[in-house]
Amino acid sequence: GRTALRRHGLAARSAAVRAYTPGSQRISPERLNTSLHDSCKWGAAFRWGSDPRETGMARLTLDDADFAARRWLSTEMQALGCHEAVDAMGNQFFKRKGRREGPPIAVGSHLDTQPAAGRYDGILGIHAGLEMMRVLYENNVETEHPLALVNWTNEEGARFPRSLCGSAVWAGTAQLDDFHALRDVKRPDVTLKAELLRGGYLGDVTCSHQANPLAAHFELHIEQGPILERAGKRIGVVLGGQAYSWFTLTVRGQANHSGTTPLDARADAMLATARIIDRAHQLARKHSGLASTGIISAEPGSINTLPSSVVFTLDVRHASGEKLSRLIADIRSAAADVTSEPSTQGCAIEWRTEFESPEIRFNAACIDAVREAAVRTVGADAAMDVYSGAGHDSCSTAQAAAGSACPTTMVFVPSRDGITHNPREWSSPEACADGAQVILDAVLTYDACAGR
Amino acid sequence: GRTALRRHGLAARSAAVRAYTPGSQRISPERLNTSLHDSCKWGAAFRWGSDPRETGMARLTLDDADFAARRWLSTEMQALGCHEAVDAMGNQFFKRKGRREGPPIAVGSHLDTQPAAGRYDGILGIHAGLEMMRVLYENNVETEHPLALVNWTNEEGARFPRSLCGSAVWAGTAQLDDFHALRDVKRPDVTLKAELLRGGYLGDVTCSHQANPLAAHFELHIEQGPILERAGKRIGVVLGGQAYSWFTLTVRGQANHSGTTPLDARADAMLATARIIDRAHQLARKHSGLASTGIISAEPGSINTLPSSVVFTLDVRHASGEKLSRLIADIRSAAADVTSEPSTQGCAIEWRTEFESPEIRFNAACIDAVREAAVRTVGADAAMDVYSGAGHDSCSTAQAAAGSACPTTMVFVPSRDGITHNPREWSSPEACADGAQVILDAVLTYDACAGR
Ligand SMILES: NC(=O)NCCC(=O)O
Ligand SMILES: NC(=O)NCCC(=O)O
Repeated sequence: GRTALRRHGLAARSAAVRAYTPGSQRISPERLNTSLHDSCKWGAAFRWGSDPRETGMARLTLDDADFAARRWLSTEMQALGCHEAVDAMGNQFFKRKGRREGPPIAVGSHLDTQPAAGRYDGILGIHAGLEMMRVLYENNVETEHPLALVNWTNEEGARFPRSLCGSAVWAGTAQLDDFHALRDVKRPDVTLKAELLRGGYLGDVTCSHQANPLAAHFELHIEQGPILERAGKRIGVVLGGQAYSWFTLTVRGQANHSGTTPLDARADAMLATARIIDRAHQLARKHSGLASTGIISAEPGSINTLPSSVVFTLDVRHASGEKLSRLIADIRSAAADVTSEPSTQGCAIEWRTEFESPEIRFNAACIDAVREAAVRTVGADAAMDVYSGAGHDSCSTAQAAAGSACPTTMVFVPSRDGITHNPREWSSPEACADGAQVILDAVLTYDACAGR
Repeated sequence: GRTALRRHGLAARSAAVRAYTPGSQRISPERLNTSLHDSCKWGAAFRWGSDPRETGMARLTLDDADFAARRWLSTEMQALGCHEAVDAMGNQFFKRKGRREGPPIAVGSHLDTQPAAGRYDGILGIHAGLEMMRVLYENNVETEHPLALVNWTNEEGARFPRSLCGSAVWAGTAQLDDFHALRDVKRPDVTLKAELLRGGYLGDVTCSHQANPLAAHFELHIEQGPILERAGKRIGVVLGGQAYSWFTLTVRGQANHSGTTPLDARADAMLATARIIDRAHQLARKHSGLASTGIISAEPGSINTLPSSVVFTLDVRHASGEKLSRLIADIRSAAADVTSEPSTQGCAIEWRTEFESPEIRFNAACIDAVREAAVRTVGADAAMDVYSGAGHDSCSTAQAAAGSACPTTMVFVPSRDGITHNPREWSSPEACADGAQVILDAVLTYDACAGR
């Protein structure tokens, strides 16, 4: 049977396609959605409705639930004849042989979530890849290139505060040692490397696009914004992603009594922080960018003591890398102004850059394959070109250096009310199926055309 | 000798004063300062200079260091023939007999500190009382009234977020059960009552000014502000204290992605918080009051997620109780406005009142005794009438209801650079001695005149 064939390298007989017509292979919407929600038993949290599927998720990268989900994925992929390799960042690569040798065309995304997340961000992308592998296995399809499903480590950057961790080291835009040394934002004694070791995910494959190249990278993701829904579209053909930078700011003031210290004798680190957050927002608005603060803490943390220091994050974004730089420069200068204003005079501000993701343009051939597949699945009127507001592992893979470049693009499906990073994040079963079908078609189209 | 006399009720022979001339009893500046710094070994932290006395303190109420300091105080007071009683809030009363029966004239303050505190706030007041008892013991002075030294529990309100806890319950301005149920701000599973039990400080005396009355309450405290130093004065004769209210605000927004959520689709709880803190400050400035935030936290606490909620404290003060009410009303309405502004539209704000301390006017007879003592010790030119910016246990005792009213006042000495609630808080040994001498003289003057 199939297993025996596979053992002998798939050479005997196959339905290999040298030209592929989108739609001729079909995903199973039922299987896709069932599988997705079944796998959410690892990390389900924050119930918001009575249906078993109406919970959110808390599956932070490399926590016990994440380890359980990873092991489940290994079992599923093994059953489909895929070979697993784990690299030094814990990225899981599940490879399926093709007619040719060489780097696989990958479908990748991530199984980790935000601390109070939904069931779709990243998870849907992995399930689209799994469903693709199931269809090909079931129909005994031999592709021209090898294929792979990739589960990237710590895409979210929620537990260890750099996003796209696994894919960034792989793409060479970040250093392995730096990311191994990252500390859990809530338990600073725990490093990313220690958690890789704990789970058995410090793999022996070098984490590098040169040592372990991919021929291309396709990713299905929920949009995580309101644009497709507002426009009444079903598929977003993603042309690129906006630039963003993450900072940690430390504002040092003078601790003093909140009842005895006249306003003009204060170096109030909390007021300085409030002014910076407010002005960062005003400047973001002016420049058509974004500025946001998600983490904040104050020392010593007493109701009647002006803080000696406040530490907070700033996430700044702009579709244009150049305009992002200008926005950041303006925020820096506004923050500097605060240190000479009444009540915050004498505060000192320290900026640490945590992560930078440049403006990304995806690969034209990959985009064409997605667009063709999208038009076939939902019709030209229901597809729309978009840019990604969020960073994605595809933003990393797109940066893999020439020589081992990795042509990349993405597919978006609508998010209800544009809500994400929230337990109520939701995309309809139909939308999930649309996306998975487009991924299957795009990959097979690209496989049939690439490298001819 | 003295011990035998004391056992027989001090009746045999004494230097009891029925008229007292300030300055005829003298404190020992050396003993006072040595004793103060010796006792700081329990909780010393945050070294800032090379001298053994150049550290700050971390002795939060009812922690192990506080228990050790309390036990040390018991031993010292026992050696001076004082009887200890502990009430249901853990307040320690050390009583010394007088010629008459009846409620004692008290010197009170607190041994607990802020999390990153200095060596004087509260601690100096206890040591002034201890030094007074040592002088009277040494010189075998019999007073008309019994005297007491009181160590009030959780004056700071730093660990359990209500200030003046022990004295407030004693004065009837707060409920015992409410304060027993208070939770540690950093370890919410620990209650104040559990910590009283742990240390053996859930005493059997009823915590009440009716059941356990005081004839008067005098308190020496560092000013904790810059006024005396700026005016070049050595003693502050405290006429009263400003009104203040403490609130915890919870701002609920919509958790969402910081990269995909357009500014106008946001209900950004962090931006709303920043706007409220900024405007509270503006309004405080306009009304000549104060507004400050010392504690803040955001959920879920992820760099790329707009918070679902932000919780922070607001400490609002005004010398006038009436103007404080107006300031608070203005801040409430400014906060409500924020919930309909761009990017914070739809946020919900919940206010919880944590603590309220009214505007306080101290007792005229007590103030007169202090003024007379101050003029004798530092001269009329170096004494100055002031109001307290901070709350103090004396603000509680001053509120004890008529019937068991407790005439109260305070003495201030200068704080270097007005710095307090900070390890670098410092008052000179001479200033500490000035204050302790004024307390001794004021108490003996009041004792000689009161109730005639
Ligand atoms: N998709 C997603 O939530 N990625 C995390 C990186 C980012 O903050 O954009
Ligand atoms: N003196 C002092 O710091 N008291 C604490 C109560 C207040 O915050 O005013």
